[in-house]
Amino acid sequence: MDLTALASAHPDHWSKATGIRALTLDAVAAANSGHSGMPMGMADVATVLFEKHLKFDAANPLWPDRDRFILSAGHGSMLLYALLHLTGDTQFPIEELKNFRQMGARTAGHPENFLADAIETTTGPLGQGIANAVGFAMAEEILRAHYGKKVVDHHTYVIAGDGCLMEGVSQEAITLAGRHDLSKLIVMWDNNNITIDGPVTLSDHTDQVARFQAAQWHTIEIDGHNPDEIDAALTEARKSDKPTMIACKTHIALGHAAQDTSKGHGALTDPEQLIAAKEAYGWKTGPFEIPQDVKSAWEEIGKRGVADREAWEERFDTLPRSKRETFNRALALDAPRKLSATVKAFKRQMSEAAPKLATRASSEKVLEVLNPVLPETVGGSADLTGSNNTKTADLGVFDTDNRKGRYIYWGIREHGMASAMNGMALHGGIRPYGGTFMCFTDYARPAMRLAALMKVPTVFVMTHDSIGLGEDGPTHQPVEHLAISRATPNTYVFRPCDTVETAESWELALTMKESPSVLSLTRQGLPHQRHEHKNTNLTARGAYVLADAEGSKRRVILIASGSEVHVAMAAREQLQAEGIGVRVVSMPCMELFAEQDDAYRKRVLPGGSVRVGIEAGVRQGWDRWLLGERGKFGKADFVGMDRFGASAPAEELFDKFGFTAENLAAKAKALL
Amino acid sequence: MDLTALASAHPDHWSKATGIRALTLDAVAAANSGHSGMPMGMADVATVLFEKHLKFDAANPLWPDRDRFILSAGHGSMLLYALLHLTGDTQFPIEELKNFRQMGARTAGHPENFLADAIETTTGPLGQGIANAVGFAMAEEILRAHYGKKVVDHHTYVIAGDGCLMEGVSQEAITLAGRHDLSKLIVMWDNNNITIDGPVTLSDHTDQVARFQAAQWHTIEIDGHNPDEIDAALTEARKSDKPTMIACKTHIALGHAAQDTSKGHGALTDPEQLIAAKEAYGWKTGPFEIPQDVKSAWEEIGKRGVADREAWEERFDTLPRSKRETFNRALALDAPRKLSATVKAFKRQMSEAAPKLATRASSEKVLEVLNPVLPETVGGSADLTGSNNTKTADLGVFDTDNRKGRYIYWGIREHGMASAMNGMALHGGIRPYGGTFMCFTDYARPAMRLAALMKVPTVFVMTHDSIGLGEDGPTHQPVEHLAISRATPNTYVFRPCDTVETAESWELALTMKESPSVLSLTRQGLPHQRHEHKNTNLTARGAYVLADAEGSKRRVILIASGSEVHVAMAAREQLQAEGIGVRVVSMPCMELFAEQDDAYRKRVLPGGSVRVGIEAGVRQGWDRWLLGERGKFGKADFVGMDRFGASAPAEELFDKFGFTAENLAAKAKALL
Repeated sequence: MDLTALASAHPDHWSKATGIRALTLDAVAAANSGHSGMPMGMADVATVLFEKHLKFDAANPLWPDRDRFILSAGHGSMLLYALLHLTGDTQFPIEELKNFRQMGARTAGHPENFLADAIETTTGPLGQGIANAVGFAMAEEILRAHYGKKVVDHHTYVIAGDGCLMEGVSQEAITLAGRHDLSKLIVMWDNNNITIDGPVTLSDHTDQVARFQAAQWHTIEIDGHNPDEIDAALTEARKSDKPTMIACKTHIALGHAAQDTSKGHGALTDPEQLIAAKEAYGWKTGPFEIPQDVKSAWEEIGKRGVADREAWEERFDTLPRSKRETFNRALALDAPRKLSATVKAFKRQMSEAAPKLATRASSEKVLEVLNPVLPETVGGSADLTGSNNTKTADLGVFDTDNRKGRYIYWGIREHGMASAMNGMALHGGIRPYGGTFMCFTDYARPAMRLAALMKVPTVFVMTHDSIGLGEDGPTHQPVEHLAISRATPNTYVFRPCDTVETAESWELALTMKESPSVLSLTRQGLPHQRHEHKNTNLTARGAYVLADAEGSKRRVILIASGSEVHVAMAAREQLQAEGIGVRVVSMPCMELFAEQDDAYRKRVLPGGSVRVGIEAGVRQGWDRWLLGERGKFGKADFVGMDRFGASAPAEELFDKFGFTAENLAAKAKALL
Repeated sequence: MDLTALASAHPDHWSKATGIRALTLDAVAAANSGHSGMPMGMADVATVLFEKHLKFDAANPLWPDRDRFILSAGHGSMLLYALLHLTGDTQFPIEELKNFRQMGARTAGHPENFLADAIETTTGPLGQGIANAVGFAMAEEILRAHYGKKVVDHHTYVIAGDGCLMEGVSQEAITLAGRHDLSKLIVMWDNNNITIDGPVTLSDHTDQVARFQAAQWHTIEIDGHNPDEIDAALTEARKSDKPTMIACKTHIALGHAAQDTSKGHGALTDPEQLIAAKEAYGWKTGPFEIPQDVKSAWEEIGKRGVADREAWEERFDTLPRSKRETFNRALALDAPRKLSATVKAFKRQMSEAAPKLATRASSEKVLEVLNPVLPETVGGSADLTGSNNTKTADLGVFDTDNRKGRYIYWGIREHGMASAMNGMALHGGIRPYGGTFMCFTDYARPAMRLAALMKVPTVFVMTHDSIGLGEDGPTHQPVEHLAISRATPNTYVFRPCDTVETAESWELALTMKESPSVLSLTRQGLPHQRHEHKNTNLTARGAYVLADAEGSKRRVILIASGSEVHVAMAAREQLQAEGIGVRVVSMPCMELFAEQDDAYRKRVLPGGSVRVGIEAGVRQGWDRWLLGERGKFGKADFVGMDRFGASAPAEELFDKFGFTAENLAAKAKALL
């Protein structure tokens, strides 16, 4: 590349873009790790975006109607950190950049949304950002439809790399965006033909432009180092009535000895090459030093949105008070006042009606009363609406001609759904929930983990939660999936046993602020358990005594969740009839039980009894409740699955694998 | 549809295809569950494929050079079962079809490869079949290059539905196939515009033909009910020098009242509608009865390949004996004689050299000696070759101009890689291994689970297996992923502590016949532990005494895996210096330790000592070894992770999270 020509053609632009490149080189050198090439290659695109298109106010990174900027190619985190520092974000003083990738810094190896206000989402696992962005753009459409264009009217801009586009989730994302004409979603593809292993062509010959067109996107191809072309493309994209993909032909590690090579993808720390690159840029200041005129120019850019934001605030104040309150309440993830009363009334009614229902059907009943109280919920399913029972009458279906619709037909895209739900939650103003079969936790995993890491309260509705789904067989029968979600930090797994516990689980899931929830729901009908109405949410304690020893001394504690609670209750009856005192503990949420104080936990699970756990899944995760963390509880056993299931009617499977009152009672007696 | 016109235009074809439809209706009605519409819609395509193109011999379903038929839309399992019954596969008598979806039947809800010889792969989780198929087709190319066209020369045919094509993994699969010109891969897309939730257009507007073209496929569009068009398309596809996608416009549940509706996707069990459909077909026999002439015609089709197979056997016999032996040995998954000696020699050398290495680097050393001994290995990485250390000098790179190459640059496609590796293993003749960062277990999960369910010995090389990867931060630091793989039935997770254990782990992984392995390897260097050479593979016992109490009575057992073994050894030294007797147990594979007899396990983990486990992951899965399944072991503790990691240099992270000899020793003393 002839850098001199680039610099002289657009000197103002060049110095601003070089600021990004220089900071990247310096920070990566200081950390002795990181990815230099991507920020250096996309500096021109990012500069034009921030200078001329992105609606933002660096002093108010949380302004609700800002444009969203998502760095899907998260390894290029220095691009974002440099932009935030240059535009004057007070959370990114130069010290943060000097501490790139060090303990406690906001400038983590990959952008982490919970470390700084201006970081919209956590990226790094490739493809997630672009898939989140679909949720951001959907959220904008939905909120615009509900609140009006004068308070919600912004774009979602994404920088995605070759890696993002190779990941399968990107296909789910772009076909969703294409289906829904998400015209305010603009993806800038860093088309540098380099991956870690070598040129992209080593592993891919895809015509990306044709691929996006096949997904009903508008596409534009430009030289990613020409600011005029970048500006024109962004202007054109903003006018399109389809989502737009701008293919930006770039040189990775522009101007460095490693330009256009896979070495350029990584950490460029060679001191001499670093100096040579800065010389080639015409950059004369020392490490982490930005010439005052360049810094000032960037700070002006950081203030570009001030007037817009102020005008927006004035417009927002003209909204009716109730709308404003709902908007702010949803954004703050606060529960509406009516929620608690609605749940209580529903529980009272269900305690009396005591319906025999599959918990997926219980869940639908709950949603029928909660969705009208929570206008911020957006539901959906990955093509299993009738099976996941996620759609309620009032929601309406989100579509190109009904942006107010609060139900999404996600199609057969569990991963895309989960990532987009995270995006909705990150956007703010929406509480997303979506369903699939629990076994397909596997497909959604990358996004489910990120929900937990990012601290967003996405709700994953996982029905058909065991061999109880029957004939579909082991490919569809989760065995290890409760353990998988329970192993994941900051994730609450709810496995309710009846309609009342299901309502309590939903109440908790829909009031979480910083954690995702997994609802584990049955396909098969379950007898009702909670006959006495209590206003308290017992599920909030994680576990509680559902039935205690009667008549004789307690010698056995049976601990069960979900569809096995009624088996434990039946085993209790058998044992009580033999004069053995039995307590049944319902344990709908291990994580919440773990959070209770010692006294409560000891009250529910006192010593001196043998314990048998029962759950139609693997034992992994149960020992803490059976044995205690230090093995102090004594004798225990477990009825669960230690193999994959089989294809047969559910009742036969439960018999075959020992989920019967007889077997459970026998296990308890064997311990006595 | 005018069924009479269809029937009269091609009466012989019609009666054969109707046999599939009638059996489907009968089996689903008998089971009162299942999916009728897909087999009914694709019966014409399948009939022409089996009658005129598929190279197979129903009496010899395992003939190595057969064409492979993969039903990616696995919910349409009755299509496959009907074809196998009709063509005379002896594992599918009519009783099997009458027992569709019942306990112990081969006719499970979704096709399960381990239940019958003719079922090539397990499908149901959508998109997996088409992604497996890429591996099948690659395996064919590689084996053809190595053994010659006269013994390896077959096609891979796939039936895929809308669901398969919506799943992201399908994009990874088709772009891989397009990259490598896998011209013998032919996908028949069941283009019926119906999903469970409604018409495909509810959730997708993708131009699939354009999408496949963008991925460098040949495409053909046909009427999926016209046998002439089907035949012509398959003929054209077989001549193409690219992979071919045939878009077959079909009517789901053809001829049934539910035709062209999402109801038609499911179980069509209404007795009157069933009778009406059979009448419309002109089908006059009772349930599960096939007219003799139709059955005979199908059985002739089942014998079409006999001459081909016999000719192939003769050709195979002309191969040099050593080639035949290697071919058969690899197909049988038997280890070569030299393997064991090679591992022993390597271990001896390493015990002496005692290199300080990251186990990912140890792994590369091992592969350098094993790949030359095992011509059946095919390695690869999802764009992290230099980080996963999976490429060795002898392999050569698989490419369009080097089909002999045994190394695959999979690109940024963890899920596609894992599914395709499964396909290679299922094809037979190849032992695939492939690498990514352990955290991206999440992306590969659906295929990793299926490897275990399908009983194939795919090896997943998961490097950067803890916070020890350092600065890349929590998005890249696995915390729960050891637990995830350990929770999965029939999966062996190896976490070696040094080069010797790494060699032992590889020896075990590469001799597995029915189970996948996960190798958990470090980014960071580890001190060598196994200084005394033993010919026995100690890792095969799952856990063993690495160092015992010396001088004083044993009061503490420290149990560790992988990168924490040296921490346990250092803690032991500290405690021994204080006069406390300490045993260190290295536990590279929990699953193998669980398989040892009680006597061995008691010898390694006797009672009477306090136990502390240490592993840079969540505790889930450890309690069995710390506390015993019934809590009989007494006092125990654990040093692990109960939160996500952070971005910082590795040593600082290990300090911060307590993975130090000091902390471990303190935990042990607190228990004493």
